[in-house]
Amino acid sequence: MALPRNTQQQNAQAQIITASCSSKLGTVDVVTRYLYQNGFYITEIHSFDDTENEQFFIRIEFRPDNGANFDRQAFFDGFSPQADKFSMQWQLVAKAYKPKIVIMVSKQDHCLNDLLYRWRVGSLAVDIQAIVSNHPDCESLAKWHNIPYYHFPISSETKAEQEALVWGVIQQYDTDLVVLARYMQVLSNDMCVKLKGRAINIHHSLLPGFKGAKPYHQAYEKGIKLVGATAHYVSDELDEGPIISQGVETVDHGFLPQDLAAKGRDVECLTLARAVQNHIENRIFLYGQKTVVFTK
Amino acid sequence: MALPRNTQQQNAQAQIITASCSSKLGTVDVVTRYLYQNGFYITEIHSFDDTENEQFFIRIEFRPDNGANFDRQAFFDGFSPQADKFSMQWQLVAKAYKPKIVIMVSKQDHCLNDLLYRWRVGSLAVDIQAIVSNHPDCESLAKWHNIPYYHFPISSETKAEQEALVWGVIQQYDTDLVVLARYMQVLSNDMCVKLKGRAINIHHSLLPGFKGAKPYHQAYEKGIKLVGATAHYVSDELDEGPIISQGVETVDHGFLPQDLAAKGRDVECLTLARAVQNHIENRIFLYGQKTVVFTK
Amino acid sequence: MALPRNTQQQNAQAQIITASCSSKLGTVDVVTRYLYQNGFYITEIHSFDDTENEQFFIRIEFRPDNGANFDRQAFFDGFSPQADKFSMQWQLVAKAYKPKIVIMVSKQDHCLNDLLYRWRVGSLAVDIQAIVSNHPDCESLAKWHNIPYYHFPISSETKAEQEALVWGVIQQYDTDLVVLARYMQVLSNDMCVKLKGRAINIHHSLLPGFKGAKPYHQAYEKGIKLVGATAHYVSDELDEGPIISQGVETVDHGFLPQDLAAKGRDVECLTLARAVQNHIENRIFLYGQKTVVFTK
Amino acid sequence: MALPRNTQQQNAQAQIITASCSSKLGTVDVVTRYLYQNGFYITEIHSFDDTENEQFFIRIEFRPDNGANFDRQAFFDGFSPQADKFSMQWQLVAKAYKPKIVIMVSKQDHCLNDLLYRWRVGSLAVDIQAIVSNHPDCESLAKWHNIPYYHFPISSETKAEQEALVWGVIQQYDTDLVVLARYMQVLSNDMCVKLKGRAINIHHSLLPGFKGAKPYHQAYEKGIKLVGATAHYVSDELDEGPIISQGVETVDHGFLPQDLAAKGRDVECLTLARAVQNHIENRIFLYGQKTVVFTK
Repeated sequence: MALPRNTQQQNAQAQIITASCSSKLGTVDVVTRYLYQNGFYITEIHSFDDTENEQFFIRIEFRPDNGANFDRQAFFDGFSPQADKFSMQWQLVAKAYKPKIVIMVSKQDHCLNDLLYRWRVGSLAVDIQAIVSNHPDCESLAKWHNIPYYHFPISSETKAEQEALVWGVIQQYDTDLVVLARYMQVLSNDMCVKLKGRAINIHHSLLPGFKGAKPYHQAYEKGIKLVGATAHYVSDELDEGPIISQGVETVDHGFLPQDLAAKGRDVECLTLARAVQNHIENRIFLYGQKTVVFTK
Repeated sequence: MALPRNTQQQNAQAQIITASCSSKLGTVDVVTRYLYQNGFYITEIHSFDDTENEQFFIRIEFRPDNGANFDRQAFFDGFSPQADKFSMQWQLVAKAYKPKIVIMVSKQDHCLNDLLYRWRVGSLAVDIQAIVSNHPDCESLAKWHNIPYYHFPISSETKAEQEALVWGVIQQYDTDLVVLARYMQVLSNDMCVKLKGRAINIHHSLLPGFKGAKPYHQAYEKGIKLVGATAHYVSDELDEGPIISQGVETVDHGFLPQDLAAKGRDVECLTLARAVQNHIENRIFLYGQKTVVFTK
Repeated sequence: MALPRNTQQQNAQAQIITASCSSKLGTVDVVTRYLYQNGFYITEIHSFDDTENEQFFIRIEFRPDNGANFDRQAFFDGFSPQADKFSMQWQLVAKAYKPKIVIMVSKQDHCLNDLLYRWRVGSLAVDIQAIVSNHPDCESLAKWHNIPYYHFPISSETKAEQEALVWGVIQQYDTDLVVLARYMQVLSNDMCVKLKGRAINIHHSLLPGFKGAKPYHQAYEKGIKLVGATAHYVSDELDEGPIISQGVETVDHGFLPQDLAAKGRDVECLTLARAVQNHIENRIFLYGQKTVVFTK
Repeated sequence: MALPRNTQQQNAQAQIITASCSSKLGTVDVVTRYLYQNGFYITEIHSFDDTENEQFFIRIEFRPDNGANFDRQAFFDGFSPQADKFSMQWQLVAKAYKPKIVIMVSKQDHCLNDLLYRWRVGSLAVDIQAIVSNHPDCESLAKWHNIPYYHFPISSETKAEQEALVWGVIQQYDTDLVVLARYMQVLSNDMCVKLKGRAINIHHSLLPGFKGAKPYHQAYEKGIKLVGATAHYVSDELDEGPIISQGVETVDHGFLPQDLAAKGRDVECLTLARAVQNHIENRIFLYGQKTVVFTK
């Protein structure tokens, strides 16, 4: 009997399971067997074994084969004991689920504008709950998109209070992912810990690395031939969290600092969007200081 | 009990299975279950479901978990009946196996030189059995690498005889893959059929496509801004076989035809090498007029 | 005596001259001599000689060396006789001049959104006069940016009348450049002739080229590994005008037609923006079926 | 009267002048006027003004317009007084001149192999005089190309003596350019000073920068998504000289250190070749800690 065609109904029931544990015979089978025995058709598997560190990662997309509704609770009850045999860390997400996002921004809005566009035309399948900023500049852009905008000014004296307000918004919306879309404030260690694995930052990454203020002026003085950007998970090491995606564009001596910055904006938009896309499709494992990304 | 470290002995026993069949519940499980029950540890799975055409593809790397030697015959005897239930097309290759390659070339030797280099330093794990050419030009390069060189001149009158000689070499060496590294002759339909799925060609692919003679002169007249290359499996449609990999480089108006050709050579080398690498790692499924490539 | 620092006043007076004629001894000197003798400091020269066609192209940025105001009329009166000796085609534009742009769009607004963003933050130095569309979809985006929006529906019967309306808008605003930002209508020959050299179009350019409807579906069936875009001047050959810029992004078998289209949008935005940027900086010579682009 | 067609004779007489001085009215005119008055036709000019530092750079390709032979001495005698008025640093090179190159290498020969290939097929117009190495490994490759090979072993005790031998070779061959094609020894300060502006090095440039031993192992542990390479002029700051060209390739978590290194080799070859090409075409100005590169 032929399978039914790929329909909206099927997609509506599709699920993504991601799991990780120590490398051991049976890690794949324990998942695939359970799926088969419970009538789930697998549309995509991707696994990776970090042989150096003996760690196993797997991501599977599947759906009820018979067109039935997916019973999340039954899956949990049935699969949990199996996963426990391998001390497996695992997550189950409906493919149709749109993660709740809070975007944080300062004054520059190129990444914000880019993310809003992708969201607006449906290519970024998220629910943008709120935009938080330490400046008022992006409010009208938020308004046009009918997204609540929280303006929480910050100073060195009010940093703790401001972060409490930010944290309040993040909790209020049951936020799955915080996107730091050129939020120019360093988060406190405490905030970084709370957001571990669910906050993505974008920063310029020029070759060689220019730390400190006015990186594009430094880059101009050094005559660099590439500008780049790195999207990474927030960690308490500033701008040094686990890398998710990286991009570059070519430049030359004729690029003044403002030209380098303009090219940098292009790279930042694409690199951040790619990172967010991989995150919301549950394609990323955060793993020590690094990531495993099963990019499409 | 911890797994043994990733050792040379383990890698020597590692296997790659690739399989394809119609989409149907159980296609993954039939493979993963067999592997588990026979004590094989999976280090990498990658599957894809072409939902439009309801076709399933899977590639798995695995090895005996206990460090034992792999018994190929036993695997065939045990797994074949399982695969037959799904009318599965499958292949099993030892990861350490070095495919036997014959390279065909005319006068230009940039791709040949590149492939020989990768082979010489061990980054392209193949056995280059022979180089076949319709010209004598590359003989000394072949000699320096200690590879037999067959010079079979060709003319419109001798095309059939020449192809018979070429085919003789291909058979003599039990060739797994023929690489057309800028072999400037059109193969006969018969030859294309015989080599289906095991001959890779490289050709320039300029935007927009320039057919006919002197493509780089045409490209110069049109003022193109990119030069590209496409590696594809040989098919009886000239230069239109299933695409494996594609690459591009930027150019501008100042590139004379010979400059475009030089850039083209760089792209051709990288694009062909990538295609061959994916083929020899059994990462490619040839499928109608297209490929599924599980690139690393 | 040291030159004065690079100030806003100097930039305000900076000019760009572009010129072209048959290759002949003295083509450079006639320009550079005139500039020197009239006290103009040259900040950038770029020339190119198409030796195959014996055609000369030059672009020079210069400014009054003494900080004086630039006298456009005096320049014309003085330089015209010199240029005439070489039958030179030439143009003079103030560097600070913002070209008047009309953007044409249908339903898809990714390129429009991208151009508006660059304009809004000042990285695209144009005056966007109006947005013209055969659909109402982008009106609110236009409004938010305070740009007049003209909705001129079109059908096969009303094509001529609609084009007359469009042409009316183009004339009304004294338009320097029309940007077809995914305007999905074929312009009439007459319109193409009127807009020669001052209308830029963007279209997908997949490898190999897919003509006709649903190009991304064709591309999916063919298993392409790159999606691209080409920005070109409008000509009466549909989608075959002189190429200005081209871009690509990598894809694989897992990209469904909608995924290919999404990647395509990213490439189209960047490629069109680059073309418009080069045009407004007077970096492009349209020359037969090709362009000379002195990219920064 | 039409110009004569672009012939080999013309190309044989073509010259390249490069010049630099402080920004000042007349810097262009002093060169272009001289060329015109002496009957030289300009085929390409490229100038750049570093407005921040008030420094002027120009590169011109020209040839006798009447097909006459170029008289180098007469040019020097005539132009020197003009150049002196602007305290201009300038260089004049025949376009057909093939710079004398010495390549230095250790054990890894990917860049060497790539440069030799380009030289062999005529796309890199240099005279490779000698290959110098601290190891014997590349000798047979050198021999096959009929290039003298000097094996000068080095130890911490013999560093000074070995460098003296190297310097001897460089002088013996009247070397224009030394290419460090993966020469894994740090040159002494003295050697760096001697080679200023005429020695190009290639090194990996990973994002973020990994200093010290085993950079690809560090990169693997950090999960980088790009590997890159930077070609730069040798300076006494190790691996920090003025950048000439940079390249990158994408990678992912599945790339083991040896896979990263293999990708790195591809980038290094292309990046070094591009730098050398620009140098030998006299397209590079070394300028403080940076370069101005008039790339084709």
